Formats: sequence, structure tokens, C-alpha cells
Amino acid sequence: MFKKEIRVLGIDDGHFDKFKGGQALVVGALFRGGRVLDGILSTTITVDGEDGTHKLILLANKNKFKPQIRCIFLDGITMGGFNLIDIRRLNAATGIPAIAIMRKFPDVSKIKSVLEAIGQQEKVKLIDGAGPIICINKIFAQLAGITPEKAKAVLDVCCTRSNIPEALRAAHLIASGVVLGESRGKA
Amino acid sequence: MFKKEIRVLGIDDGHFDKFKGGQALVVGALFRGGRVLDGILSTTITVDGEDGTHKLILLANKNKFKPQIRCIFLDGITMGGFNLIDIRRLNAATGIPAIAIMRKFPDVSKIKSVLEAIGQQEKVKLIDGAGPIICINKIFAQLAGITPEKAKAVLDVCCTRSNIPEALRAAHLIASGVVLGESRGKA
Repeated sequence: MFKKEIRVLGIDDGHFDKFKGGQALVVGALFRGGRVLDGILSTTITVDGEDGTHKLILLANKNKFKPQIRCIFLDGITMGGFNLIDIRRLNAATGIPAIAIMRKFPDVSKIKSVLEAIGQQEKVKLIDGAGPIICINKIFAQLAGITPEKAKAVLDVCCTRSNIPEALRAAHLIASGVVLGESRGKA
Repeated sequence: MFKKEIRVLGIDDGHFDKFKGGQALVVGALFRGGRVLDGILSTTITVDGEDGTHKLILLANKNKFKPQIRCIFLDGITMGGFNLIDIRRLNAATGIPAIAIMRKFPDVSKIKSVLEAIGQQEKVKLIDGAGPIICINKIFAQLAGITPEKAKAVLDVCCTRSNIPEALRAAHLIASGVVLGESRGKA
């Protein structure tokens, strides 16, 4: 269904100090399928802020690879703490399908109570709006602008070394390695 | 001579403002051969400074991958402007062979005159000390702690997409993409 060289963008955030606020680094890794790194994008988002979706739309839209990008992978819908990503708006504003990927089934009610505890109830609707959580190839995902069947086909092409797409695995290693000096976890 | 999964470290610097001084980001990309990204390291060096060799020694020595690293690739011996890397000291202090790679034959006499013009004559000896420039697989290289024959064998394994080792190509894309927002050139 998809070529082995399909262009995809994996996006992940770097470590940040949750007690200091400020900005979190966000890295986008452009891959051809699950093998070749084609380019790197970066931006920053406000820790626990509300600019995540807007910044990701700019990141995906304003780069020379845009016309080729066929899918965006995110590490869940929370970045930079509780800066929630509206994957439907990301999909609509870029025209690119978005897949939020989770290794474990998320504790949605816990996330909702934390949001209420920190006075950010309005973000609860983004969690509900991200749609049903489906299980594909031993991971969990929320989809925007793509069917479960096509999402599985994209993942089959892009997951060459683990259950996580290489683009997302690389974005994670890069964001954590650049911020911390040495990459951590999920490698 | 070398396994396809030989662990190598590619190191490159990011963009910096040469009129502002300050620090340049340096990224290390750990690869298995020419295919799999295993981890990311990072540090900073002083633009036009003298701490490059010391910082690269720390970068290569102080990480969990150290026991596996079989070769270090550099993008030439100048990083962060004229912060020259002593590849012999890098090799001696890490026990890892070092290969400085250049796409074109460098204009050595021009570099020497610039160093003299900016009052950094003492760095000229690092250029001479980096040893003869040899041509391997259409690129140019200076070697420390490795024979030309073995250097060719390592390059044959690590250059899967171009004449440049994937680890070095990735380090370049990452360092420029993180600093500039979008990676440039040599991709």
C-alpha cells in the first residue's frame, strides 16, 4: 500500500525542568520509510503551555520537505509537560495524517485529574477529541486523517528496528541527546 | 575485516555566529555501521577557541557506548570556526581510531594564512600534525591510530548512502537542524 521510501516526520520533545517552566526543545526527524534520515527540524514549545499545536503546524508546514511528507508521528499527544497537541487541527492545517503513538495504554483518567488539579480543565477536551485509542502492532495509537488499516500499513513500513517508527525513535534520541548531553531510554 | 554492525561515532558542529564568538553546538551520532542510529551525544565548544580536542575526548570517553566504539569520524579537523582538533591526542586519550573526513582537498596554505592573520599561529602545528591527506573512496581523510587499509574497510561498511559515513551525515543534519530550525546541505 505504501512505498518503502515513503517520507514521514517523527516529532518528540527533549527533557525540560518541570519546576522551572520555560521552553522545551522539540525535534522533527524526517525519514524515508524506516531507514534513511533525510533532515532535521526543530522548534521550542512552552512547558505546560498552549502553543504546542500551533508550533507543530509551523514545523510541519514551513520546510523544504513539506510536499513529500505523508505522515506525522507523535509520541502521544502531550509534549512539554501538559502542552497538549490537537492532532485533528494538526492534520487539518497541514493536510498530513497524524498518528500519536504510545507504548502503553495511557491512564487517561489520571491525566484528566492532573489537568484539573493544575487548573487546566479546558485541555481535557483535547484528550477526548484525540479519538479512540487503538492497538496496532503491539503499540497504541490515536489517529487523525488516516484509517486504522492505512496506519498499520505505514507503521509496517516505518518500524524497522522496533515497534516504534524509526523517525520517532530518532527524534527521541536526538531531542534527549542534545538537551542532556547523552540520549536516554526508548533506544 | 569489519562487521556490518561495527559501532562508530560521527561528530559535527552546528552553525554559529562567527562575529559573535560564544559557543558552538557539537553533536555526536552513534551508529551501528551505516544503518542504525543507536544514540546521540552533545557538547559545546568555544568558537575559534582551544577547547575542542579536550571536549571531544570527554564526549567520546564519558558515555555508556564507549566500550563498543571502534572509530570516530570528524568533519575535517576544524570545528567551531578555528577550534582545531588534535586527532592524534583524541586517538591517544580515547584509544579509538580517529578519521577526519573532507569532501574536497583542503586549501591548507589558506587555512594557515588565516590562522596567522588572526594571531593563532600556534595552531598551524595541529594542521601539520594531523598527518598526510589521503584519498579514499572519492573523499579525503587524515588518520590517527588506523591504517589506510583499515580506514577504507571501515568506510566501506559505514558509507551506505553517500561517500560520507552515515554517522557523520546524521551528526551534520542534527547539529544544523537543531541550531537553525531546519537542516542544511550535505544531506
